[in-house]
Amino acid sequence: MKKFEEKTLSTEKIFDGKVISLQVDEVELPNGNKSKREIIKHPGAVAVIAITAENKIVMVEQYRKAMERSLVEIPAGKLEKGEEPLATAHRELEEETGYVTESMVYVTSFYTSPGFADELIHLFLAENLKKKEDPASADDDEFVEILELRLEEAIDYMKQEKIYDAKTAFAVQYLQLREATKENG
Amino acid sequence: MKKFEEKTLSTEKIFDGKVISLQVDEVELPNGNKSKREIIKHPGAVAVIAITAENKIVMVEQYRKAMERSLVEIPAGKLEKGEEPLATAHRELEEETGYVTESMVYVTSFYTSPGFADELIHLFLAENLKKKEDPASADDDEFVEILELRLEEAIDYMKQEKIYDAKTAFAVQYLQLREATKENG
Repeated sequence: MKKFEEKTLSTEKIFDGKVISLQVDEVELPNGNKSKREIIKHPGAVAVIAITAENKIVMVEQYRKAMERSLVEIPAGKLEKGEEPLATAHRELEEETGYVTESMVYVTSFYTSPGFADELIHLFLAENLKKKEDPASADDDEFVEILELRLEEAIDYMKQEKIYDAKTAFAVQYLQLREATKENG
Repeated sequence: MKKFEEKTLSTEKIFDGKVISLQVDEVELPNGNKSKREIIKHPGAVAVIAITAENKIVMVEQYRKAMERSLVEIPAGKLEKGEEPLATAHRELEEETGYVTESMVYVTSFYTSPGFADELIHLFLAENLKKKEDPASADDDEFVEILELRLEEAIDYMKQEKIYDAKTAFAVQYLQLREATKENG
């Protein structure tokens, strides 16, 4: 899909960081005019909707510096170079929650902020969770607290803005839809 | 919610653009170690789930430079300085689609990429749409094509990755859930 393509006239690299990089592209618009586009490059990520035997959703609370507050989110993490999303999903689930599973199923993918960033997030559903005795641990600079919420609690957390990010909002709604169609069918 | 707070030791401003700005914060972690956080500041945005009298979802196709492709998304746009999200929702709906409504209802909000950006998006539901004779037009550098999709078509577009962003994926699922609970109740 290339409708209304914007041709790149020049690219200015501004910043190359640990997580993201920033460039400004000068583009030619479909009407011939010129404009600039500020673009964040990101390696992509996975997120895992993990459901325990008690039908609870595994969440992690962590501090998010960009907002200067903590958020309750589904487990997630960045793709390592060359890593398949499925492998990242298994790795992040174990590192962040101590759970492992043989039932990790792809759900969907989406760009998080297409207006300025190329971050693509891949969502997986993990069921039949098992607690690992000696799980791989998280990154040195990650501090997370694990929560296990019933669906109704997660919906309350959304109303209270404790859950307040796109992937987790999508995940909670995904489970609501699954419940609703189960009741239906 | 300040759990695992990361104290700011210093802030380095890297870039201040038209849409986003970038800074790198040096932080003190809960264990006393130091780390760096790459942070994008964004003014925030609204997105509108707009439903026509024929029960179709109004979508816009536009080129997204960060991904070098076009995407089909629900109408959306950035908050202007000091603008209330409800006003932005009315403005963007009219500018991008030519529709106006008196029925613009708040649905929810979420951060799009809490790992590196503070972009908060506010979602609204617009019904009882009316085509305006002489609508306010879009920004000079915005080229969009309007589509009106049945819910089943939108789900197909997701499978084909034409719809491929978080807010639109959430919106489609929101309408699926609304359908499912309508059938139920």
